[in-house]
This record gives sequence, C-alpha cells and structure tokens, in this order.
Amino acid sequence: MINYPNKKKSNNVKLTSSANRGMNFETMINQTNEFYLDNDIAVIYKKPIPIQIVSVDYRVRSAARITEAYYKLPSTTDYNGIYKGSYIDFEAKETKSKTSFPMKNIHEHQIIHLNHVKKHGAISFIIVYFVSLGRIFLLDSDYVNDFYKRSQDDRKSISLEEFVEFGHEIKEGYRKPVDYLAIIDEYYLKTPQK
Amino acid sequence: MINYPNKKKSNNVKLTSSANRGMNFETMINQTNEFYLDNDIAVIYKKPIPIQIVSVDYRVRSAARITEAYYKLPSTTDYNGIYKGSYIDFEAKETKSKTSFPMKNIHEHQIIHLNHVKKHGAISFIIVYFVSLGRIFLLDSDYVNDFYKRSQDDRKSISLEEFVEFGHEIKEGYRKPVDYLAIIDEYYLKTPQK
Repeated sequence: MINYPNKKKSNNVKLTSSANRGMNFETMINQTNEFYLDNDIAVIYKKPIPIQIVSVDYRVRSAARITEAYYKLPSTTDYNGIYKGSYIDFEAKETKSKTSFPMKNIHEHQIIHLNHVKKHGAISFIIVYFVSLGRIFLLDSDYVNDFYKRSQDDRKSISLEEFVEFGHEIKEGYRKPVDYLAIIDEYYLKTPQK
Repeated sequence: MINYPNKKKSNNVKLTSSANRGMNFETMINQTNEFYLDNDIAVIYKKPIPIQIVSVDYRVRSAARITEAYYKLPSTTDYNGIYKGSYIDFEAKETKSKTSFPMKNIHEHQIIHLNHVKKHGAISFIIVYFVSLGRIFLLDSDYVNDFYKRSQDDRKSISLEEFVEFGHEIKEGYRKPVDYLAIIDEYYLKTPQK
C-alpha cells in the first residue's frame, strides 16, 4: 500500500477491467490458448506442474493413487509452443501491486531459460497481470533480463511505468482473454493476425 | 513375462546394445538433452508428468506434502524445445519387441498433437527404442500418422523393416546417448551438426 500514488483513481481503474475480472489468470491464459488451438492459430500449452513422486498406492489398478509427493522447482517457464513457425516461450505472473512487479516472483533459472531459448531463435517474454488495475503487459525477455540484472544491486521490481514504456499492453477480450499473439504479430512478426 | 516370445535369444541380443545398456530410455534422452543444453546446442526439455492433485497437507509450510493425486493422460508429447530456430516436438517410446512397435503405445491425441505442431512449422517425430535390439529410430510424424491411420483397420504396429525404410537410425554415443539432432541436421536442416 505504501507505493500507491494513485489511490483515488482505483474505482475508475477497476471499471476498465473486463468481464474476465475475477477469473484466475492461469485460466485466462489457458482459455486463450484453447481458442488459438481450436481455431488452428497456434499450438501453445501450459506445462504440468513438476512433482516429485515419493509413494504410490497401486491397490486399485485402474487408478494408481499417489499418496506422497512434493512440488519441485520448475526448470523452465510455464508455457511454450509454436506460432507461425516460431517457437514461443513465456512465463505468466500476476501481481496485486498497483505500481510494480517484484522481480522475486520470477526464479533466476526461468530468466536464464528465457535467455537460452531466445539465443536459439525463440520469441520469449513474460506476461504480467496487474490484477488490481486490470492491465496485462507483455515484456520481452531482453528487458526482463536487464531488469533482473538491475535488481541485483538496485531496484528489486519493474515499475508499471517501465511496463508501459518497454512492454506492450495486451487487450482483454471475451473469447481470447489474453490475446498475446496480437502483440507478437504487431511487434515481432509485423504481420496482421487473422 | 507372458508376451515374451524370444526368451532364449535375450542374452545374445543384449550384447549388441551399447554401453548405455541398462540405462532407462528416458534417462538416455534426458542426458542427451542435458548435453545439448550444456553445450549450447539446443534447449529441449521433457515435460513433467501431468498430475491431478486432490489433497495437499500444508502443515509443514516449507514443504507442502501432496497426499492424494492421480496421473492424468498427457495432452501432448513428452518433449519439446528449440534447435537452430526450429520448434522441435517428439514422443519417445521403448518396446521390448524385436520385430515391431505396437501403435497402442502412442495415444491418439499425441498423434494429433504431432500433426498440429507440424502444420504450424514444427519438426515433429517419434523416437522408438527397440530395447532388445539396442536400436533406436527416429520416425517423422507424417509416417506416424500414416501408420496410425493404417492401424484403424489393418496392421496395428509399425514393423522394424518399416522403421528401417521410412525412419532414420540414431547412433548411440557416450555423452549423447540418443543423438537425434544429428538426424535433424542431416535430413531436416541439411547442415552438418557442430
């Protein structure tokens, strides 16, 4: 609440968020990806959550029951796939902050992964949802990397203004809640989306 | 043990397999991918196994313990990533058969997925390890699709001879147990691998 310079505007800002307000961000991305898949636009999936399985009960053979398991730290980002021949790779995060996105929300190895795939020709980025503002930004992994480096000995977050300046705002829609491929078309592939 | 027609030959056949003999096929692929990653050749990962989590114990906050979960059917293939700007997508399977690979070992939705990504520009294929023969083949998803269609009302498997004729045999190596990118270079990208 401390870094919140525009509190008076919050009611107005909320009104700008769409019908997707309240929907889980992951669900919004997944619905978008389903739309892309169903309409043969792109094939992009969320990876399953990595789990370390310790113990499984096979007594009911039709449905082996995992009885002890633990979450593992992901080695990569959550989403990848293909669009118009390009390998797409990104991490999606949300923040309740109205002013900035804390760098600690992204693991270092995820930033390294984004850099790796970019080096090999991928389109890689993060998508950040400012829940309280109803605003979603795509930020290229090169900038993510720069801001990560800065966070080592300076500011530990990316400000909303920096997303506005260096990122691209994604419009929310009904059937494509987070239509990030419109950004890819406009700024990466320079071709209008079908 | 019931469907094991060539038990007497097993000792001889085992001798033909390489130093990786006994290593789990998934481990062989993962080691290869690690080699590719460590040497900055490609970024290709195995996706985590999809799990439906039902119940989690949060009493020890440092390590939430999953106490009830079930395996889910994967929607996609196990492996994907990027190599020389190309999106790579494949499924890896092993068979104990010395003569053919049963189509039932691949789910229909995985074949559909391979077709989908191919349509959008991916290099997609399956890798099949004939464990008893110590031979590994890469087979393009177009052929996989053809053989899948055939299996609907005819032969339910892909014969070893068909892998020899339509696929590419992958050489086993020490640091790259399943060097499938050598095949991609030679037959897909037409450039020698570094």
